[in-house]
Amino acid sequence: MNFKTLELSDNKLIWIDQTRLPMELVYKTSDNLDEMINAIKQLEVRGAPAIGIAAAYALAITVSKSKKIKDSLIKKIADELKASRPTAVNLFWAVDRMIEKYNNVKSASENEIVDTLFAEAIAIHDEDAKMCQAIGLHGSELINDGDTILTHCNAGALATGGIGTALAVIYTCKEQGKNIKVYADETRPLLQGARLTAWELQQNGIDVTLITDNTAGMLMRQGKINHVIVGADRVTNRGDVANKIGTYSVAVLAKENNIPFYVALPESTYDRTLESGDEIIIEERSPLEVTKGFGNQTAPNDIKVYSPAFDITPAEYISYYITDKGLTKGTRV
Amino acid sequence: MNFKTLELSDNKLIWIDQTRLPMELVYKTSDNLDEMINAIKQLEVRGAPAIGIAAAYALAITVSKSKKIKDSLIKKIADELKASRPTAVNLFWAVDRMIEKYNNVKSASENEIVDTLFAEAIAIHDEDAKMCQAIGLHGSELINDGDTILTHCNAGALATGGIGTALAVIYTCKEQGKNIKVYADETRPLLQGARLTAWELQQNGIDVTLITDNTAGMLMRQGKINHVIVGADRVTNRGDVANKIGTYSVAVLAKENNIPFYVALPESTYDRTLESGDEIIIEERSPLEVTKGFGNQTAPNDIKVYSPAFDITPAEYISYYITDKGLTKGTRV
Repeated sequence: MNFKTLELSDNKLIWIDQTRLPMELVYKTSDNLDEMINAIKQLEVRGAPAIGIAAAYALAITVSKSKKIKDSLIKKIADELKASRPTAVNLFWAVDRMIEKYNNVKSASENEIVDTLFAEAIAIHDEDAKMCQAIGLHGSELINDGDTILTHCNAGALATGGIGTALAVIYTCKEQGKNIKVYADETRPLLQGARLTAWELQQNGIDVTLITDNTAGMLMRQGKINHVIVGADRVTNRGDVANKIGTYSVAVLAKENNIPFYVALPESTYDRTLESGDEIIIEERSPLEVTKGFGNQTAPNDIKVYSPAFDITPAEYISYYITDKGLTKGTRV
Repeated sequence: MNFKTLELSDNKLIWIDQTRLPMELVYKTSDNLDEMINAIKQLEVRGAPAIGIAAAYALAITVSKSKKIKDSLIKKIADELKASRPTAVNLFWAVDRMIEKYNNVKSASENEIVDTLFAEAIAIHDEDAKMCQAIGLHGSELINDGDTILTHCNAGALATGGIGTALAVIYTCKEQGKNIKVYADETRPLLQGARLTAWELQQNGIDVTLITDNTAGMLMRQGKINHVIVGADRVTNRGDVANKIGTYSVAVLAKENNIPFYVALPESTYDRTLESGDEIIIEERSPLEVTKGFGNQTAPNDIKVYSPAFDITPAEYISYYITDKGLTKGTRV
């Protein structure tokens, strides 16, 4: 990677302010809890795994600066961190893991507690990076030299503590010396494909071409796409995938054109408590993201807007699930 | 219609400056050839039929103001008009029709020539309006009370001399008292759905909801769409349709979800000289429309962009062609 999404240095957190991308690569540094929480709130740090890692570091850093370590302090820090993005599963998971570690060592010396918390945050980061590498390695088995891959949204290094999930496959293929080409859907409304995926692939020397979401189908029909790889927000027991809005459309187009469709995810993204994707409640986004997305207003005043954040791609459209544990055949193989 | 896209009044052309939509409804008036040509060049007037009508009026108006009517004058005006949008078929057709009319009456008095040219321009406008009404009437047979319709791009009153093509069906249903609901794809890159379709349907009291192009598939899977209606730039002899980029994707999604897919067009849009849509050369648009489409730059510097203006939807995806002559069954009925 030619950039570091998150880094611990001199007991401070360094992060890329992703709200400044793709125009500027700005690193911010802080050991102030409010500033670190604000970075999560303002989407300077985004992507479920990256948020979890940042929160773990923020907890360790804040404790290390405290005069007196006690349960009430840990609880206060944890509560503030958890409130930064109320629906981020990885955030809760990472903070709870840090609390558990604290509870195990809280009778030790303050120095030992601080060392343990730093070690745990680093472990969370390292584990995520290894998971990304494993996903990349398993996924790369599906890709041949000379292939062209389409991706949607950003499931990349900017969203994780490593080389990403969907994009991990691409980075790994490049490391293996495979000559590959990528088309990135811009991904309305928030344009994560244009702002983040196009940027990080370009930074790392991948041959990437940006397209509007409307162009993906035409490229598939023309035979210009060999594989589609996307990430996942949640995957149900039967293999239905909740992911960024538009993923279902890309999956249908891939099926119609006999192009394999892969979902890359850590095993932990499976939600075995749900059977069907239709049980998942779909978050609606603000109409302003559609009517005034990036500077100018582009729709009439008072227009009704429907803007779901993600959609459900049923298992029937998926050729392979690429996880850190290996490849799982989907229903469409 | 609660607005007039084009109007002849006191020997002057009045048009809506569509570059100001959807924020402001601004009518412009001129009898100056350069100003009228500029309106076409700057996309103040857009949509193939509307451009043709505007050019016919511009020719008649300019001739009416000239001191001495002669062949060289007509040729000069015609050449300048034709150069305003080099690929607009209706523009050439309308100007040539005006020249032919001129040639038929050029030995008459100057007053008679001017009257004839005005009458011909008005006839071109009237014929287009009648064609739109016929399309609307035929298409309305396919739509039931309570139905929800999805449309892509703008094939509406703003693009024609009447009530549009795809949107003519919607306006006609409303006149018939059918209670219908419309979803409008925003249609990246140029957002004609957000800027124009949403605006004109809203102006005319149609229940319209704006969505990103990524949302159409999800709505179809949820059973919320009963029909898809789009316009066409060109239709080949076998029924392949060239239309705004993303039309093919919508057609595939409609097929996958068993939703009928209609193309509304004047019979004149058929190009019988072509058999397959794959013979049509696809115009590429400027990368800036993708990377800086909304005011702010939303993609990295120097990113490669592929932005075709339209795609080809093969005949196999089309349920009905709705023309001014009636309904023609497609392959997907």
